[in-house]
Amino acid sequence: MSRRVVALCGGVGGAKLAHGLAMALPPGHLSVIVNTGDDFEHLGLHISPDLDSVMYALSGLSDSDRGWGRREESWNCMEALQQLGGPSWFRLGDRDLAVHLERTSRLREGARLSEVTAELCKHLSINTEVLPMSDAPVRTRVLTDAGALDFQEYFVHRRCEPAVRGFLFAGAATAQALPRALQALAQAELVIICPSNPFVSIEPILALQGIRSALEGIEAPVLAVTPIVGGKALKGPAAKMFFELGIPASAAAVARRYAGFVDGFVIDDSDPVPEPLERVRFFSAATVMRTERDRQSLAEAVLRHGEELVARHGAEA
Amino acid sequence: MSRRVVALCGGVGGAKLAHGLAMALPPGHLSVIVNTGDDFEHLGLHISPDLDSVMYALSGLSDSDRGWGRREESWNCMEALQQLGGPSWFRLGDRDLAVHLERTSRLREGARLSEVTAELCKHLSINTEVLPMSDAPVRTRVLTDAGALDFQEYFVHRRCEPAVRGFLFAGAATAQALPRALQALAQAELVIICPSNPFVSIEPILALQGIRSALEGIEAPVLAVTPIVGGKALKGPAAKMFFELGIPASAAAVARRYAGFVDGFVIDDSDPVPEPLERVRFFSAATVMRTERDRQSLAEAVLRHGEELVARHGAEA
Repeated sequence: MSRRVVALCGGVGGAKLAHGLAMALPPGHLSVIVNTGDDFEHLGLHISPDLDSVMYALSGLSDSDRGWGRREESWNCMEALQQLGGPSWFRLGDRDLAVHLERTSRLREGARLSEVTAELCKHLSINTEVLPMSDAPVRTRVLTDAGALDFQEYFVHRRCEPAVRGFLFAGAATAQALPRALQALAQAELVIICPSNPFVSIEPILALQGIRSALEGIEAPVLAVTPIVGGKALKGPAAKMFFELGIPASAAAVARRYAGFVDGFVIDDSDPVPEPLERVRFFSAATVMRTERDRQSLAEAVLRHGEELVARHGAEA
Repeated sequence: MSRRVVALCGGVGGAKLAHGLAMALPPGHLSVIVNTGDDFEHLGLHISPDLDSVMYALSGLSDSDRGWGRREESWNCMEALQQLGGPSWFRLGDRDLAVHLERTSRLREGARLSEVTAELCKHLSINTEVLPMSDAPVRTRVLTDAGALDFQEYFVHRRCEPAVRGFLFAGAATAQALPRALQALAQAELVIICPSNPFVSIEPILALQGIRSALEGIEAPVLAVTPIVGGKALKGPAAKMFFELGIPASAAAVARRYAGFVDGFVIDDSDPVPEPLERVRFFSAATVMRTERDRQSLAEAVLRHGEELVARHGAEA
């Protein structure tokens, strides 16, 4: 398949499929729109965890054992920072720090986040287009039993322990979606929603003006991949969030959250096919990505199923 | 000797004597007023090279082979930064970065430089009082054949190559000397000018309102230690600066710059005693500090000569 593909994604899981798609598609055919609701300021640095996960996955720099951050990482700065009484709850690797320093420095010089991202990708020899969802700040706040928490405070510092009651995407009502992201969606021949946490990775993107309506009005099919397998999230708190919100965690539950704009939904082939959902076609594939080969296989399966949706769209038109 | 001693100093050479004095004096008897004219912003970080040199020397963290920065240092962030096209002319070690991050972060929170310095010293178990010369920014600019350069641009980026025509201490006319530094001087029983570059380490301190007049009016003797031995600077561009300013580099030339407020001047025992200078008594000592033992020996010699000056002051009174 050599169509123009746009993927929406958050952190680690989504980044893996983005990497698979980058391997499966010819260069220049993939744009990835990345959640920036997790971005935060820490130690004076602008940190964009999801952009970094995507960049590290696409450049082959990610650490597959640890599951986050860079491989061949060292922690000497962090160790020295602890000795100085500095905050150590957010672990910053020495090599990872270089990205935060360079990004922060360029942003302070007045560059836009999208520009800086393009520069970083160029230096890392990434030829996939990586697009932050917006150049304006949107900050995910997790409404919990312990009060409203900034995302990283909830996710890293509090280890997702407080029970979730809801989410707030501060700034989303006024933040403009990245114009190039809207353009990429308009030009897309297939849109893929990566296996990312629906609440805190995909929905912040959908909350931006123009994104959801673009997905609803788009001619190209939209195909989502489940982040839930066997009622569990492969990584992160998605299943716990479903539970605390009173919804049984399942691929079907994710599909229902995306109803209205998805045409297809890929469940894991170990899971039963969900109850039919209006206008959503279900597919099965091996969605668990342990190896690089798994990433590419899933990407190829997703592109194949996307092709089927395109054919059906064509037949209906 | 267990008098209250105040030392004025800049970077590496001065820091070594400060360390020697800290070893030679009982705890709580030494305050060090440190030049901050070299401070600069780099990659969004507030960097205070001289404060760091002093802190690292006093805490035993400095690298004696390299001559600057921290021992057991690694350079992984720097290497990654270069890969990203970031600036690499100012070498930041991974452990050193922790100090810059913590300091910058605390300053952004509204803390004063002197407060942050005290906090860092506390965490590094330093029981010498380390005082930045001012909480307000003063920035040394080097007037050269290649134009006016920020100090680090001249010193690190251009490797002291442009010929020096003069110096400017931007902000010094309005910056207040640290009140605690003035208080320490008023309470001092001996003031030591460390073997630091007179032009860019000591004179920025003297340029602050109240410092020079305090030194001139002070009852305690002021004793300087030469940074020039055998017509050369042990480290850094002091001798080159003298030459370019048309002054033969010598201990005597340094003593003449300090005339008006020094009562004693320690030359290296390998150098000839200079021509008499009004109101300045010359002493000789082994001023080259290669080992930790050298630092303490020089400190002890300096304190002994200081004691002689105190006795003479007493006799004159």
